[in-house]
Amino acid sequence: MSLLAIGTVAFDAIETPFGKTDKILGGAATFIGLAASNYTKKTNIVSVVGEDFPQAHLDMMASHGVNTNGIQIKKGEKTFFWSGKYHNDMNTRDTLDTQLNVLENFDPVIPEEYQDCEFLMLGNLAPAIQKMVIERLHKRPKLIVMDTMNFWMDIAMDELKETLKLVDVLSINDEEARQLSEEYSLVKAAQKIMAMGPKYLVIKKGEHGALLFHKNDVFFAPALPLEEVFDPTGAGDTFAGGFIGYLAQTKDISFENMKRALIHGSALASFSVEKFGTERLVNLTDKEIEERLQQFVDLVQFDIVLENTI
Amino acid sequence: MSLLAIGTVAFDAIETPFGKTDKILGGAATFIGLAASNYTKKTNIVSVVGEDFPQAHLDMMASHGVNTNGIQIKKGEKTFFWSGKYHNDMNTRDTLDTQLNVLENFDPVIPEEYQDCEFLMLGNLAPAIQKMVIERLHKRPKLIVMDTMNFWMDIAMDELKETLKLVDVLSINDEEARQLSEEYSLVKAAQKIMAMGPKYLVIKKGEHGALLFHKNDVFFAPALPLEEVFDPTGAGDTFAGGFIGYLAQTKDISFENMKRALIHGSALASFSVEKFGTERLVNLTDKEIEERLQQFVDLVQFDIVLENTI
Repeated sequence: MSLLAIGTVAFDAIETPFGKTDKILGGAATFIGLAASNYTKKTNIVSVVGEDFPQAHLDMMASHGVNTNGIQIKKGEKTFFWSGKYHNDMNTRDTLDTQLNVLENFDPVIPEEYQDCEFLMLGNLAPAIQKMVIERLHKRPKLIVMDTMNFWMDIAMDELKETLKLVDVLSINDEEARQLSEEYSLVKAAQKIMAMGPKYLVIKKGEHGALLFHKNDVFFAPALPLEEVFDPTGAGDTFAGGFIGYLAQTKDISFENMKRALIHGSALASFSVEKFGTERLVNLTDKEIEERLQQFVDLVQFDIVLENTI
Repeated sequence: MSLLAIGTVAFDAIETPFGKTDKILGGAATFIGLAASNYTKKTNIVSVVGEDFPQAHLDMMASHGVNTNGIQIKKGEKTFFWSGKYHNDMNTRDTLDTQLNVLENFDPVIPEEYQDCEFLMLGNLAPAIQKMVIERLHKRPKLIVMDTMNFWMDIAMDELKETLKLVDVLSINDEEARQLSEEYSLVKAAQKIMAMGPKYLVIKKGEHGALLFHKNDVFFAPALPLEEVFDPTGAGDTFAGGFIGYLAQTKDISFENMKRALIHGSALASFSVEKFGTERLVNLTDKEIEERLQQFVDLVQFDIVLENTI
């Protein structure tokens, strides 16, 4: 029951009110793979890096059970680089620099050993490339989860809508849901977006939690109230990796199990933001995850017995 | 086990993207009383209106089991009036007009029949008046809940901090919590505010739900995702009225029961915003509340068995 994740493996340079970093390991597929590795040791990555990308990063990912054989290394080229600065509220950020480098001509190659893919996570990339990956799989996966962002809605809405038709779960944030649907109400937005293809929609609201929609059902996973959000970079990808990793491990794609997957994803994201980049994810124990999950249970658990309340 | 609520009984003129009203019934104590009336028929109101205030409004409140004997009617004076306009996101509003009228010299008189008060709800008013009410009660109530707003933090912070020392629960929104504590993180803000007096702190986040803090415990009550928020006026007061009404009915002020009270308050607030002013609250059945509570249970209920997950 293997999991295939496609997305960037990259360098990030991050500035937050708490400090700044030089080029550190980043990228959607990196966060997805590390998060999912807490659930399954069969996470296959498809991505591309330049020859400036340290072997040590690949070794670290492999040591977490992430299969990096599908990460192309382009001789004479440079790795994708993103630099950004977060403001005090940590909900807004400015992009300081984007260097596409190897991403400019990314042609995703699926190694033969990845073809048994049952769970596919399409990390944020050009929608046309995401679609290409689906088409290059000999057999449709049991579940396809897609992440995307406003950038693609601005410049590639038509391709985005084509890819949307092919996926089971879409994961976007609240502003992106509004942009995609042209509806302010998230309830109305969800209905419109599900009519575009995805049977399930996850709307991420950052520090305000996440909503899961399916038909007329809705589930809400809270975000843990944190003393400090140190660096939000990769939180959404970590969330997605925990979500699909848990589903791949449990092999159950019912709405009930997706609720649990959403809580697991939220728990992992709450760790990710505690340190810069992947630092916290790399040093994460099962015991810590278990304790964090208990905090989520305590956070929302109440016992209203409906016959006796009124 | 009676409940005493102090606050404005007023006229509001409201403009939202969905329409506008002439002067309609409003005021913190009005919403609190109507919300609490779903739980206890012993809600005593202390407030003041002018001679322009229709007897029909008082009769309506009385018909819901709200005791209006403590509402002073000032001959030759006019009722407090507020007019505001909401923008598309419904989270921001502009005050168009505020006429204090009878509130300018409000001297809260506690009728003798109100002195058995066990639960006291201090609706949003000048902190000095809120304090006066506590002092005019012969016996300290079992629980004092206080609402306030940024306006008093701007012009009467010292008095506000004096009143804060005397209350058990403070209910404010996220921006007010940040202003009062000078902390951006709500977790840090909560610890600072609880050090000012209140043992419990409710932070209302509007469409993003509400947090209840007590010592190192935290509970999160979601807001129901709604297709439309028609008019948010009075939602916070309705929430407070449901919260304290439920506590007064159940006579249990444990943290566990406050969680339930928070869900009840959130459920009532979700009705309040469906129509202008008090219109929805006035026509609310027990069956509707029961069904709405079930929606809250469904919204956040998940069953993670912690021994088997990882």
